[in-house]
Formats: sequence, C-alpha cells, structure tokens
Amino acid sequence: MRLKEIGEFGLIKRFQKKIKTDSSVVAGSGDDCAVLKLDKNKYQLFTTDMIVEGVDFRKNDNLELVGRKALAISISDIAACAGLPRHAVVSLGLHKNMQVDQIDLLARGLCDLAKKFKINIVGGDISAADKLIINVSMLGEVEKNKLCLRRGAKVGDIIMVTGEFGGSIKGKHLKFTPRLKEARFLADNFKINAMIDVSDGLIQDLGHILEQSAVGAVLYESLIPLSAAAEGVTDALCSGEEFELLFTASRDWVNKIIKSSKYHFKVIGEIMPEAFGLRLIDLNNKYSKLKPQGYRHF
Amino acid sequence: MRLKEIGEFGLIKRFQKKIKTDSSVVAGSGDDCAVLKLDKNKYQLFTTDMIVEGVDFRKNDNLELVGRKALAISISDIAACAGLPRHAVVSLGLHKNMQVDQIDLLARGLCDLAKKFKINIVGGDISAADKLIINVSMLGEVEKNKLCLRRGAKVGDIIMVTGEFGGSIKGKHLKFTPRLKEARFLADNFKINAMIDVSDGLIQDLGHILEQSAVGAVLYESLIPLSAAAEGVTDALCSGEEFELLFTASRDWVNKIIKSSKYHFKVIGEIMPEAFGLRLIDLNNKYSKLKPQGYRHF
Repeated sequence: MRLKEIGEFGLIKRFQKKIKTDSSVVAGSGDDCAVLKLDKNKYQLFTTDMIVEGVDFRKNDNLELVGRKALAISISDIAACAGLPRHAVVSLGLHKNMQVDQIDLLARGLCDLAKKFKINIVGGDISAADKLIINVSMLGEVEKNKLCLRRGAKVGDIIMVTGEFGGSIKGKHLKFTPRLKEARFLADNFKINAMIDVSDGLIQDLGHILEQSAVGAVLYESLIPLSAAAEGVTDALCSGEEFELLFTASRDWVNKIIKSSKYHFKVIGEIMPEAFGLRLIDLNNKYSKLKPQGYRHF
Repeated sequence: MRLKEIGEFGLIKRFQKKIKTDSSVVAGSGDDCAVLKLDKNKYQLFTTDMIVEGVDFRKNDNLELVGRKALAISISDIAACAGLPRHAVVSLGLHKNMQVDQIDLLARGLCDLAKKFKINIVGGDISAADKLIINVSMLGEVEKNKLCLRRGAKVGDIIMVTGEFGGSIKGKHLKFTPRLKEARFLADNFKINAMIDVSDGLIQDLGHILEQSAVGAVLYESLIPLSAAAEGVTDALCSGEEFELLFTASRDWVNKIIKSSKYHFKVIGEIMPEAFGLRLIDLNNKYSKLKPQGYRHF
C-alpha cells in the first residue's frame, strides 16, 4: 500500500494511534499547536511547519516572500490557538550552488516578519538538499482562559471568519498577514468556542472542527466572502493556504463581536447537531451535502 | 557568490549578524540548544535538526534506524546542554509513492526512542517531497546551575570525551545512543565548564568550544580513543556524527570524575591560552598545529 492510497489525513491518524503523551501535554497532535503546561496562568504552544520548493512555493518565487511565508504559517497556527508567538528555530535545506544573495533575501523575509511580530529567532540547522526546504518550529504562550482549540464548537454556535476566501495560490499564500491581532482581540474581549486557521481549505478545516467537536454545520453560499482572486464559491470553499481564521461562538457573543465592528469578521454559517453533517444552502435556498475537500499533499 | 564559497559556518555567521533577541533568551543561535528563561530554577532548551535522504542517510538505509536517528540527534543536543528532553514535533517530507509500511518503520524508530527517553511527540507537519526529509524540533529543561554551554572552557581545564571516535559513517551514526545519562551524571555530581556533542567532528566541535570560550587547546594523539571502525587517528579527529560528548572541567573535578569510574569518560587533552591555538602532540612527542576540520554540508 502506498502513501497516496491512505492520503495525508489517513497517515496522520496512523501516527496518532502510535503516540502516547504524559500529563504535561494538554493537547497534542491534532490541533494547530500542541498545548503544554507552563505555569499557573499560561500554557505554552508548540508548532512546526515545513515548506518545500516545487510543492509549497515555486522555484522562481521571490525568496524574501518565501522566507516570510515560512514564518507566517507558524504564526498563523499560534494565532489559531489565540496565543502570542515568542521564539522560533529555523531548519534550512539548501543547494550548494545557491546564490548567497538569494539566501540573504530568504533570511530578510524571515527576520523582518520575526521583528514585526516580536519573535526571537533562537537557532536553526542547515543541511544540503537538492531543493530548497524551510522548516520553522515556533513556541508561543496563551493565557489558560483564552486558549482556543478545534474541539470546543457547540450546537447553535455561529461560524465566523476573519476575511475573504479563494484564489490564494495567485499570490495571497506568499503575502498574507497572520491574523494574530484579530485572534487576540477575539480572545481578549469575547468567548470563542473553537478556532482554526484555514490552511487546507475552508470546508476541510471546518471539517476538523466538526470532527473534533462532534457536531455538524450549515454554511450559506450567499454569506461566503469571496476574494477578488476567487473563481467562484467552490474555489472559496476549497482553496488552501488562505490563512484566515475560522471560529465559532454563541449567538450572544457573536452579536457583541459584530457590534464591536473593529475587524472585518463575517458570519458564514451555524453549528448543527452531528447527525446533520455538513451542508451548504445555495443561492436558491437548496441544501447540498458537502464533503470535506481542499488541499491535500497526497 | 555561491553558498559553497562561504561554506556552512560562513552562512551561519551571516545569519547570526541579522538576528536580535530579547532578554528572555539566555543563549540563542550558536550553541547546541537555544536557552530560554522558564522559571525560577530552570531554563528551557529548544533545538531543531533536519536530516535529508542522500545527505544524512542513504535511500536504502533501514527506515526504523533513520527515524530513530532523527530523534536521537536532537536528544544529543539536549544532552550537550546537560538537560532533559521533554517534547518533540516532527515534520516529514514524503514521496506520494512511498510504501506505508516503510513509513510505519520510520514512525516506529521515532516512537520507540521517544518512549525510551520519555519524550512526548506532540505534533508535526507533513509535506510532499521528492526525497525523504525529517525535521525534529525538541524542547527540554535544565536546572539553571547545571546548564552547560560551549562558552565556559577555562585555561587549565582538562578535555574529556564520553566514548570512542572514528568511522561513524559505517554504522554508528544510525545506531548511537545519545549520551544523556552521562551528561546528567556529570552535571549532577561535578562542575562541567563547557560541553558540546560531536556532530561535525572532534576537532571541529572542539573548535566551537575554543572559539566561544576564547581559549586554545592541546590534544594528545596517544589519548584519542579509537573506535573499532576508526581508520586511524585522523579519522577519529575528523569523523562527523560520532555523537559523543566532549567536555571540559578543572583538574580537581576531573580527578573526581575519573575516581567515580561510572562511565567510560576519557581524558584527551587540556585547554590552553587562546594564543596557543589548537595543537596535537603526536606519538613522537612532536607538536603539530590543527586546523578545525570535519564534516561540512558545503
């Protein structure tokens, strides 16, 4: 049996079965970050992301943007848990013939974004490789009462997002700003029940929340915010690497979030009982069942 | 200018110039682990290591041993700081046609060693890649008074190692046991001034201690412990991925370490003033200057 037959998520489940963790781990594999006990008031967040030339970026992409992206996707994971990023380590796989000024560009993209988000780059590792590889592992912190996971969505919750979806591959995936301010604003002022960043696609990542919260959901096609680059609602629902946050909160809290009108949070649907599954109400008010779909590496 | 012209260590210095860290970072890039403030009594250790098919292991190597190695090199970094490993995240770059039972082997090697060293695997990331890539990032802890860095060697210190050197490429690099027990025994019972794990080669890694401690050293050819796989003393001095620890302590403490006779620690030389440089006394009692050399990716 080959990897492409069980797929990315089949493989992840296979790994998770093998793993046992001790009581210092509040949440392990299966969320945007691992959540570890830190002190009386805070948890530590720990996440890792690898990007590979030819898969997550193209050979000719601007390496300043590639370096920036490598760090930004980890910041987005910390944001999804409503935490603050603190420290990062960076592993690079580099070709021996690579131009040093290109590596400088990569480093600049990484370092400038680290500075902007007050992240310490505290170490790294370098290996030779045929194609450029960047792995960033990041530590963050979150107050215990602000932690958001995928598992807390409740029937009746309203589903919201932080921005527009679709066509990220045309440029946004290299230039997005991780929704850290938005996540902290939400966690500081309201009660968020579940949150995830949309890296695989809106439906697929909503699917992770539904699975881990044992609930269903309904989305309204008329409410899905389409970016200028979107090629329609299907693209918006399936496009990977959008790096917007998707979150759920009770109707009362959502009313308060909307009244605050500080960021462009938008309602897209509602959490339903598990048996309802995941459905879309289209522009003609017709239901259709949605299957989790979006970007998968295999 | 190409990467191979400035080399691995040239590139690392280039990065280090760009990086600024805040007061929560006790030691950043340039040691085996980053050292971060944690609480009143302890520091947190943070390290990352990437291994790539065709560079750090061969396509046909047993993947259980490869998975084991990926974790072991990070444990060795934690050991070099005299800490205890706690949590790890694992990024994998995998080919879509890879056999699932081969990935299972890889996971078994990782998980079995994690269990043996009581490490929680708390998350990961998966990307597609042409060649197998494994990145492990690890967190550990160390009591403040036990922390060992590269920078503490003092003139007059005796240089010791935890085992034999040479020919690691013939098998040890896939099967070594990280010297964690030895490191903790040393830090628990004696005063170690500087420590490093030998990943690039004995001379090259001793060179890191000398540079960061602003000292020189003399090694005695007759004292270098050769492994059965060693092809002579030059091999023992330059062979990478030996993953023994090299450490320095005052003569008084070394006498106590030798008397303890609990592990096979061996004296190989002495720390000298910086102007002395690094020299080897050969079997004919003749000095020769040594240049830092060993494994470099570029």
